[in-house]
Amino acid sequence: MSRRCVITVGDLGEFGVVARIARRLPQGESVLLGPGDDAAVVKAPDGRVVVTTDLLIEGRHFRRDWSSAYDVGRKAAAQNLSDIAAMGAIPTTLVVGLGMPADVPVEWVDGLADGFRDECALVGASVAGGDIAGSELVVIGVTALGDLAGHAPVTRSGARPGHVVAYAGRLGYAAAGLALLGAGIVPADGPLLEAVEAHRRPRPPYGQGPEAARLGATAMLDVSDGLLQDLGHVAEASGVGISLDPAAFPVGEPVAAAAKELGTDPLDWILTGGEDHALAAIYPPEVRLPPHWTVVGRVSDGANVKVSGRATGPGGWDHFRA
Amino acid sequence: MSRRCVITVGDLGEFGVVARIARRLPQGESVLLGPGDDAAVVKAPDGRVVVTTDLLIEGRHFRRDWSSAYDVGRKAAAQNLSDIAAMGAIPTTLVVGLGMPADVPVEWVDGLADGFRDECALVGASVAGGDIAGSELVVIGVTALGDLAGHAPVTRSGARPGHVVAYAGRLGYAAAGLALLGAGIVPADGPLLEAVEAHRRPRPPYGQGPEAARLGATAMLDVSDGLLQDLGHVAEASGVGISLDPAAFPVGEPVAAAAKELGTDPLDWILTGGEDHALAAIYPPEVRLPPHWTVVGRVSDGANVKVSGRATGPGGWDHFRA
Repeated sequence: MSRRCVITVGDLGEFGVVARIARRLPQGESVLLGPGDDAAVVKAPDGRVVVTTDLLIEGRHFRRDWSSAYDVGRKAAAQNLSDIAAMGAIPTTLVVGLGMPADVPVEWVDGLADGFRDECALVGASVAGGDIAGSELVVIGVTALGDLAGHAPVTRSGARPGHVVAYAGRLGYAAAGLALLGAGIVPADGPLLEAVEAHRRPRPPYGQGPEAARLGATAMLDVSDGLLQDLGHVAEASGVGISLDPAAFPVGEPVAAAAKELGTDPLDWILTGGEDHALAAIYPPEVRLPPHWTVVGRVSDGANVKVSGRATGPGGWDHFRA
Repeated sequence: MSRRCVITVGDLGEFGVVARIARRLPQGESVLLGPGDDAAVVKAPDGRVVVTTDLLIEGRHFRRDWSSAYDVGRKAAAQNLSDIAAMGAIPTTLVVGLGMPADVPVEWVDGLADGFRDECALVGASVAGGDIAGSELVVIGVTALGDLAGHAPVTRSGARPGHVVAYAGRLGYAAAGLALLGAGIVPADGPLLEAVEAHRRPRPPYGQGPEAARLGATAMLDVSDGLLQDLGHVAEASGVGISLDPAAFPVGEPVAAAAKELGTDPLDWILTGGEDHALAAIYPPEVRLPPHWTVVGRVSDGANVKVSGRATGPGGWDHFRA
């Protein structure tokens, strides 16, 4: 006979897990009908709703030995809330599908739910519903909804020659942290730990999404696959070229410290590292940008993204080829 | 040297697969901005949006050797569109996250997309966006949005003693088909094939959801885990008892044929079989129901669901305990 000390999701069963998660998730003011029915009902005061979805797979997008359940929840929420912000919208609601093996401790699920709750709280959103399924690996399907509050969505196709390229948020931090973990370095404190924390838990500049819409941004996206690759989508969708000035990018202290530790050029992480969920936006040249936007380039005729005048490869991350 | 005859998703890469899928998915009139940006923008004319999500995992919810890609797409769409209908709403849009191994043939993905397209077309909805990820198993995260068109959502909590219980759609068909496949029977035609087809591709009575809202249904849900278990949710949420009359259930020819083939009581499948996505609704006794609604029971004081006056066990499907 063995003494069982860990309660698993298999012990609680599907409905037990659902009830336990729902108790940890306060409902925001956008939610008219929350968990417990066939579907949730959410306010859409603008008469339009912005919607995005992401699938996170254990071993591909997160590792349970590298990130806590709480951090996985924060990150899963963040990358979807950030996609809403990148349209110039205000995130209102998430729904979450969670697949997992029966032997996952319920404490892990508690941590995940708390991570979702706390990341949502940063923008006044909440988890309005979800689905639980059995799975060999932990799989998280997240869908975020948002409200445009009367503004036109900021797409990828509005960049015009003469406009400027700016970003808000952080670049290269998460890539630096991932590289440290990959090299077996688990820092206890200081800037290296800050880099690892940035990998575990991005800090998207949510408020700058709707701000960019108000300021008149002509294109915007969330930097999730690397700045070069993501701006390549803007260049293609807008039919323009984009030139970046590498000297214009500040190098954060954690990025600089990690680059020194691993003997790498920090600009590689800044230009091709994903997962920080900075916002990259294109503005007409006359727009006066608040100081948290850093101008790093210009839009021109032509095609593709150039750095110091040189064409760049695709860079970034391809989920099947990498 | 081997000659490669099958193009895989790994050959096309993430963006190639996304572009290929997007070309197969026409955008409905609810979609203001479709695939290709950080998020989609969808009409929400009612000022509210109904949202539901499901996660389908290969080996748990479908098998690639038992169902074609097209049927998996039809079924994945159906179960989410049905959840929207079960609130009394009209489905408008899906977003889909798709995780899969690099060796999946692109033809499989084509079939899946076509299945989503055709099931959505039944209700005038469309796939407005999605996400592609690498995964060891095929994983499909589906989120559906819908419009209430001015009606109150029909929840699970409005059943009152004296009301009647009715259902629209099919019961027991999919369970009969699954039992045949599980017994190694692969029928070529006739009612047994019809049962297997019902497992592969449910036919939810979508239009009856908004119809029930108009008729004044006081509670409704999609029968996905089995009628007994699902009506148990209504009994609990409404604080009532529900009594079913087993003689009131018509036994479909495919269900009867499969039961005869396997020596089973067809009522087991009708009462506990999931995945047909019938709609079960509760109506005040004075409502005159159209003929596609079959009255099968009554709401009473008390608790739980009784069949012929006898209390029932939980039945149905628990994703961790089954």
